[in-house]
Amino acid sequence: MEKTKVLYEGKAKIMYETDEPGKLIVYFKDDATAGNGAKKGTIEGKGSINNEMSAFFFKMLKDHGINSHFVEKINDREMVVKSLDMIALEVIVRNVAAGSLAKRLGFPEGTPLKTPVLEYCYKNDELGDPIVNRYHIMVLDVASVNELDEIEHISFSVNQILSNFLRSKNINLIDFKLEFGRDENGKIVLADEISPDNCRFWDITTNEKLDKDRFRRDMGGVEEAYQEMLKRVTA
Amino acid sequence: MEKTKVLYEGKAKIMYETDEPGKLIVYFKDDATAGNGAKKGTIEGKGSINNEMSAFFFKMLKDHGINSHFVEKINDREMVVKSLDMIALEVIVRNVAAGSLAKRLGFPEGTPLKTPVLEYCYKNDELGDPIVNRYHIMVLDVASVNELDEIEHISFSVNQILSNFLRSKNINLIDFKLEFGRDENGKIVLADEISPDNCRFWDITTNEKLDKDRFRRDMGGVEEAYQEMLKRVTA
Repeated sequence: MEKTKVLYEGKAKIMYETDEPGKLIVYFKDDATAGNGAKKGTIEGKGSINNEMSAFFFKMLKDHGINSHFVEKINDREMVVKSLDMIALEVIVRNVAAGSLAKRLGFPEGTPLKTPVLEYCYKNDELGDPIVNRYHIMVLDVASVNELDEIEHISFSVNQILSNFLRSKNINLIDFKLEFGRDENGKIVLADEISPDNCRFWDITTNEKLDKDRFRRDMGGVEEAYQEMLKRVTA
Repeated sequence: MEKTKVLYEGKAKIMYETDEPGKLIVYFKDDATAGNGAKKGTIEGKGSINNEMSAFFFKMLKDHGINSHFVEKINDREMVVKSLDMIALEVIVRNVAAGSLAKRLGFPEGTPLKTPVLEYCYKNDELGDPIVNRYHIMVLDVASVNELDEIEHISFSVNQILSNFLRSKNINLIDFKLEFGRDENGKIVLADEISPDNCRFWDITTNEKLDKDRFRRDMGGVEEAYQEMLKRVTA
């Protein structure tokens, strides 16, 4: 399989078209941004770690019956994925108050939520990826009610599977962000990545953050946190 | 009926306890604020207009089978209402993009929405009344799923009734904010007020704003707009 052209370059990944119809290659970069691009930097080795961890989690989810765009990891920084008609939503699932939810609801960070919370943000850089509800999504015309039902069902399943697995690695899955697309049959399929870039992982014993918050908040030990997470996940 | 003590003083109204159990007196002030209290002013005669218009609409809704806290108007600026266990939510129903929705979704103000949009804001001054979804409301513990279903059902009914009526007065109901409480039997009951303070009213022919946006945006003609709305509604 050969890359033919850049389809899209995002903050942390490059998507390439290939000579195989319906297949893309994702290249994971070390570049990191935060605060909607206000902060920029590099996390050495991140691309390789996120590629490996995402491949690991997508395979694990497949074993649990959850389809993703993942096809295969082809080298250190690249995986082949199915080309999807992407839905312009970020789907955030939260088990513990952190980040914007802690601010929105006035909950101290670290407060366990009595039931998981799901949020939608409309993927639109110009608007700053605003939080939206199902009615907004209807008038934006980005997904149907049935598609949202399916997205929520999959997202809560992913939450259970990942939370259980990570608990066995002494990691608390605080929250995470998913993205979805439609395959050639219009079926909802999980896309994007699953890594410390878009999940909050806290050590259960110490509450130490092992994710991108170390970069966002200038806490240091960023590379080490990514390495530690990969080690625990793949051990 | 005698007022016994101030139960609560808000930006535009004072709620008094009375010597009749379960009954409150609402006093409508001329004070106006905008931008979460950043802007303060007075709209002469507003209290009297909002009292009369709210009484009018609550009676009209009752004729359509929608219960509210309204009991009776007792003078120019005061009405008697049922005391409710208030739910800490603002429920906003929108037919046309304006205000925060126009900003959130990047729609030009005045864009008709293909279906009505309902939004919840958590009533909390300290947090700036943040927009929330049903999952947030669950973890905040402010209302149950069944109560939200009932609130949405009533809100969309109110939208239909008011929109139809106002259309006959050459007014486009752009959006409005409702509040709800529970009566002594735990039943969901409409509360607060229905006035140019919490509705956007545009003349259908000219798109002229006949509501509090004239105050928020320093457009002048604020008192005249409130008077014009009362005249059209009660004509």
